[in-house]
Amino acid sequence: MTSLFTSPGSSLRPDPGLAHRRAQATLTVTGEDGSPLAEQDVLVRQRDHAFGFGCIGFELIDWINGRSQDETGDAELARRWTALFNKATLPFYWGRFEAVRGEPKTAELRAAAQWFKDRGVGVKGHPLLWHTLTAPWLTDLGAEQVDQALRERIRREVADFTGVIDTWDAINEAVIMPVFTAEPNAVTTLARQKGRVAMLRLAFEEARAANPEVTLLLNDFDMSTGYECLIEAALEAGVEIDRLGLQSHMHQGAWGEEKTHDVLERFSRFNIPIHFTETTILSGTPVPEHISDLNDWQVSAEQWPSTEEGEARQAEEIQAHYRRLFAHPAVESLTYWGLPDKDMWLNAPGGLLRRDGSPKPAYDRLHELIKGEWWTSETPLRTDEAGRVSLEGFLGGYELEVDGAVASFELQAPGASHLELRVPQRSAAGTASR
Amino acid sequence: MTSLFTSPGSSLRPDPGLAHRRAQATLTVTGEDGSPLAEQDVLVRQRDHAFGFGCIGFELIDWINGRSQDETGDAELARRWTALFNKATLPFYWGRFEAVRGEPKTAELRAAAQWFKDRGVGVKGHPLLWHTLTAPWLTDLGAEQVDQALRERIRREVADFTGVIDTWDAINEAVIMPVFTAEPNAVTTLARQKGRVAMLRLAFEEARAANPEVTLLLNDFDMSTGYECLIEAALEAGVEIDRLGLQSHMHQGAWGEEKTHDVLERFSRFNIPIHFTETTILSGTPVPEHISDLNDWQVSAEQWPSTEEGEARQAEEIQAHYRRLFAHPAVESLTYWGLPDKDMWLNAPGGLLRRDGSPKPAYDRLHELIKGEWWTSETPLRTDEAGRVSLEGFLGGYELEVDGAVASFELQAPGASHLELRVPQRSAAGTASR
Repeated sequence: MTSLFTSPGSSLRPDPGLAHRRAQATLTVTGEDGSPLAEQDVLVRQRDHAFGFGCIGFELIDWINGRSQDETGDAELARRWTALFNKATLPFYWGRFEAVRGEPKTAELRAAAQWFKDRGVGVKGHPLLWHTLTAPWLTDLGAEQVDQALRERIRREVADFTGVIDTWDAINEAVIMPVFTAEPNAVTTLARQKGRVAMLRLAFEEARAANPEVTLLLNDFDMSTGYECLIEAALEAGVEIDRLGLQSHMHQGAWGEEKTHDVLERFSRFNIPIHFTETTILSGTPVPEHISDLNDWQVSAEQWPSTEEGEARQAEEIQAHYRRLFAHPAVESLTYWGLPDKDMWLNAPGGLLRRDGSPKPAYDRLHELIKGEWWTSETPLRTDEAGRVSLEGFLGGYELEVDGAVASFELQAPGASHLELRVPQRSAAGTASR
Repeated sequence: MTSLFTSPGSSLRPDPGLAHRRAQATLTVTGEDGSPLAEQDVLVRQRDHAFGFGCIGFELIDWINGRSQDETGDAELARRWTALFNKATLPFYWGRFEAVRGEPKTAELRAAAQWFKDRGVGVKGHPLLWHTLTAPWLTDLGAEQVDQALRERIRREVADFTGVIDTWDAINEAVIMPVFTAEPNAVTTLARQKGRVAMLRLAFEEARAANPEVTLLLNDFDMSTGYECLIEAALEAGVEIDRLGLQSHMHQGAWGEEKTHDVLERFSRFNIPIHFTETTILSGTPVPEHISDLNDWQVSAEQWPSTEEGEARQAEEIQAHYRRLFAHPAVESLTYWGLPDKDMWLNAPGGLLRRDGSPKPAYDRLHELIKGEWWTSETPLRTDEAGRVSLEGFLGGYELEVDGAVASFELQAPGASHLELRVPQRSAAGTASR
């Protein structure tokens, strides 16, 4: 096996100027017959971001499946969700997904994933393999049976969702997996016996076998040298990590400039695009520092309110965090860990909406960034005598409208490019080719 | 490359009964002609431990090389040293060993190593590759030249000392190596570029090439999951780790039962014999917990005395630590990081002798263990009509004396065994065969 470790690139430094997020494109606009549309007024508008602005979609699953307890509130939640995000993470915690062996909630999750997909939202499944919230019925099985059950579950989920979910957290928190002591479980027992790398290989290889086109993440909360060493171990073992998942739950205080810079610097060395997979920033009191496992912090929602001061601070910290990550070329997406305070993990006031559904300042601030400052707003342009227009925009999906007809195109790579865009006569579809 | 990771064995649990340290042997004692020496009085005595009771030998180098500033004190120090230990660690910090390029202190170190070897003491060189105390002149070189210089230095030292030093810390503190920030240095820069595993491979492969029979350690102070992951990375990369080195400097307080148990449990999973390579336990005030790098603790020896209360505590803690490690079958040796307080790292009162050379209670306590409780004292026995004697003893080297003639033998493996021992007529040499 050849090592997959590659020497760090030299270009992965943060650029607040965001050159890596922008393209300068010249479009030659033609009619259906290929002849340039000269001297015409056109409208160009961005439709989507190339960057993944994600959020968990857990809270919408019941509503999508017609089981809402609050139709109005959930519909509004869905509206707020799609107004901001283009990537959804959906839960595949095995102990919940298949609490009774042989009865997976495939239909329910497929409906949810399809709902997001229909709205142009990419979906990730989380996670295929983890020691926490694993299937309770595994404890009755021997090591070989557990191994087999894990493989079958991974293949089944990846295969069943192909085309709807093609991105997965292949394995979650493998650094601690074999030495996890908070609750005895069959996955930890197996990891102890096989080692971490064998568990990684199991997850990545089974998932890839079920869908060769799948995008697989290694995901961890451990930002220490331990995670670096695990990544090196995976690369030496020939495990193909498509994306590197970094959690950033900040229940004990925002990371700030220095820690974020350090983490980006250390983890961008592997030349694997980075996803910030789980970001939480509170609008209330932080968890005390002496709590080493956040799951030990057991308080009610009433004991942990979102405060005015906290919401102002949260908005600042979220804005700063998003700016730092968007400015770093190694980062490809950033997923926030929960839109509403309702049903938040640990009852934490970490959402962007209050319990009554109203937006906190952080929601508005994020909207200003994602759909304002970093969004190419509708731009009227006029083609020249050769049918050309020039535009500069953030990478992502666009459409161009001319005389009532619309064609779509993408700005895919930073820097200068030239596209030809054929506009069908008063039709909604069109294709761009370089 | 096939993974070298093996599933954890089932027998690596601590046994305070020390069955893994003891053998029950039946010896058939014969004369030179091979005929049994029946009904004879014999004396059996232990000469050495199979277990490595080690210490650094740094303080004796000048004295061995005829540069003592205190002949009487140093001779007494040497006597105290050899009365207790059977393994020595000698310093090969590159920045000191070869401060000026091309002028290595080979002769001086070889004299020291030979002195120990002549006294039956096994010697380890420490370390072949480390980012701290590295050669200052490396900073003038480019990456490829640094790489080449490292390789040459490793080959040179291992080759030059073959037969006198056949055990080396191949690489020291690789977990932190590429992200070490305390002082810029060429080794960290190279590790950053190549990755940890490549640095491990460099050290192990060059050393092995220079001496195929060498015993090589991976050595680290990091007892977190980070070191576990690095070991997995090494094993996946096919790096043959002969022994696993765990440092245990306890300047901030003794580990105690729980941490020691946890470390042994986690690191014995790799089925690689464990060396506790660097143990320090203080007889004075511990370094405050907020100091994260011990090198930041800069105090004079006068400010950091050995106290009566501290010495009593140190003796208890050292005894407990040695008992725990000797009771664990995965542990093969334990090296204490300095016999005298004089010249101790950080000026810490961590020695077993006071600054005036007198023994602290910990020295006597260790002597009681190593040469008392865990030592098979001289035993008079009488052979039966077939020339046989039975004995139970701690693993190690022995001699048997009969009628003024002496033959030596070894108890190598725990449990029952049968040896034949031919005793030459009134000679000091003899051989045992199974």
